[in-house]
Amino acid sequence: MPPGPNDSRFLKACRREPTDAPPVWFMRQAGRYMAEYRALREQHSLLDLCHTPELAAEVTLQPLRLGVDAAIIFADILLPFEPLGLGLSFAAGEGPQLATPIRTPADVTRLSPVDPAEHLGYVLEAIRLAVRALSPVIPLIGFAGAPFTLASYAIEGGSSRTFDLTKRFMYEEPHAWHALLGNLAELVGKYLAAQAAAGARALQLFDSWVGCLSPADYCNYVLPHSRHAIEVAKASGVPVIHFGTGTATFLAEFAAAGGDVVGVDWRMPLGRAWEIIGPARAIQGNLDPVALLAPTPVREQMVRDVLAQAAGRPGHIFNLGHGILPETPVEAVRAVVEQVHGG
Amino acid sequence: MPPGPNDSRFLKACRREPTDAPPVWFMRQAGRYMAEYRALREQHSLLDLCHTPELAAEVTLQPLRLGVDAAIIFADILLPFEPLGLGLSFAAGEGPQLATPIRTPADVTRLSPVDPAEHLGYVLEAIRLAVRALSPVIPLIGFAGAPFTLASYAIEGGSSRTFDLTKRFMYEEPHAWHALLGNLAELVGKYLAAQAAAGARALQLFDSWVGCLSPADYCNYVLPHSRHAIEVAKASGVPVIHFGTGTATFLAEFAAAGGDVVGVDWRMPLGRAWEIIGPARAIQGNLDPVALLAPTPVREQMVRDVLAQAAGRPGHIFNLGHGILPETPVEAVRAVVEQVHGG
Repeated sequence: MPPGPNDSRFLKACRREPTDAPPVWFMRQAGRYMAEYRALREQHSLLDLCHTPELAAEVTLQPLRLGVDAAIIFADILLPFEPLGLGLSFAAGEGPQLATPIRTPADVTRLSPVDPAEHLGYVLEAIRLAVRALSPVIPLIGFAGAPFTLASYAIEGGSSRTFDLTKRFMYEEPHAWHALLGNLAELVGKYLAAQAAAGARALQLFDSWVGCLSPADYCNYVLPHSRHAIEVAKASGVPVIHFGTGTATFLAEFAAAGGDVVGVDWRMPLGRAWEIIGPARAIQGNLDPVALLAPTPVREQMVRDVLAQAAGRPGHIFNLGHGILPETPVEAVRAVVEQVHGG
Repeated sequence: MPPGPNDSRFLKACRREPTDAPPVWFMRQAGRYMAEYRALREQHSLLDLCHTPELAAEVTLQPLRLGVDAAIIFADILLPFEPLGLGLSFAAGEGPQLATPIRTPADVTRLSPVDPAEHLGYVLEAIRLAVRALSPVIPLIGFAGAPFTLASYAIEGGSSRTFDLTKRFMYEEPHAWHALLGNLAELVGKYLAAQAAAGARALQLFDSWVGCLSPADYCNYVLPHSRHAIEVAKASGVPVIHFGTGTATFLAEFAAAGGDVVGVDWRMPLGRAWEIIGPARAIQGNLDPVALLAPTPVREQMVRDVLAQAAGRPGHIFNLGHGILPETPVEAVRAVVEQVHGG
């Protein structure tokens, strides 16, 4: 048999099998830091790119010239907000904005039912196109937002620093909160499973903002829903990467949600993360994205430090601790890939 | 002898002596959530209030009607930027903005020398006025920004989410970075000591944004400077509270900077904080500020949880994990004070 995705460094690391070098990919590896992406964005809005499978597949493939070990489908975690009826838009140079955010329990009950195959079929089609174009040894990662992070955008109506509307809703309307997170968990679980059925070989659940919570609030208000989303996604048979930032004080509970791979940020040394979550999980991370803007010797030292924390252990997927910053030089990304691969 | 500030719950807790109830105060306890503060702000800008000792002293005293155990001088951590020559302003409803942020090593060398007694004498005068007006059993807290947090504002020119300019400067210009932090450490150390000489009975160093760093970067780029600032401040003979958020993964190193009291946010359970920093320090914190916006039973349970984490141990100063949010109801603040005092 010729080598296939299962023989890839990336999927071997997800299964904690030894690899010749750690696999590496980058969150937001298809994005504004690449000239070919910016050129496409001059002609198309972010949502247009997402909605058009041929374009989304094209963008997905752009960073492969940098030598990364996996592709990730080009999409946005907030796309399910369109069929849910929340009125998603992206203002130029700004973050996401929702026309009708969730502010009351009634807003939760009026959410439209979403069938990923029907309402997000364009993402599934983009996955099929990308997989067809990819080398068979480069797996494609599908992804979705985790219930908490999606709920925070749905309630705040956009980005936030303090998440006070989100937490107030959680404290004031626990019944509606759990209904909302339950709805989102089922939706993203099925959406992830549908992405696997369309050809994704791994699935990442992004809980980017969950680090605003205390350990007790994470356990009470979030963990059961993340666990459910991961359970539904894992029924597809492909590994799930569970990513969060600022999770240091509840990393054991975060891992208890069931991800095969746990993603951590640069605040959490990888060795300590393994002590907390145990040896039965793979770990993804955790270079500070700003390292890619640093002078070469500093960047190289920071990459060495991450590799040393993982200590050559199987089950380390090299990545940043959050997405690539738009001002990142492409050459720095390529150089990190080469360094991680031992070049 | 009649009771004085040294007999106060607050200073006893700083020294880890038993108290009849935990002392409680709130970061930003003088602020927009109070009607009497908003009334003053209709007539005066934030900087006007800070610059006018009579007004700053008046604002300092406003929250005492809520029963808190300490006052904190009304000021802003960025006030030293005016004599440094960075061009500080506050746009209406926005955060701070600097006309001439630090972007190059030359910008560091052109900073004007600052003598706290001369250039920030209005803060010292406000302290003298407030102390004169305060009950002798209510200590006044002086404060300053920590070298890292000040540097982050000085370099970003305002608020930031990713601190990429700050970290780039740190990585690209380590010599100028250390010169800048050394300058700021000496300045805030002397400024804090001058506040103690003017009558402050405790000093808080705010390192609000230091949690954006990895443990390694904290140790290499920040810790020596925080330690120096605290050393200079402690020479005044009054206790120093060292506050940070998001410090979970380098709390031992943060404590190694030397604060008598270590402030943590709601992500870090107090019991675990004590395990990390050892029993020889007092701890301040750590209610989520959004708890003050929650329904009464939820808020009361969250306060009970914080008190239970401290387990009646001497050396716990009850506070939030960050500043009071502007939309906080005054009655919730008063109710928390009563609950902490056992009412």
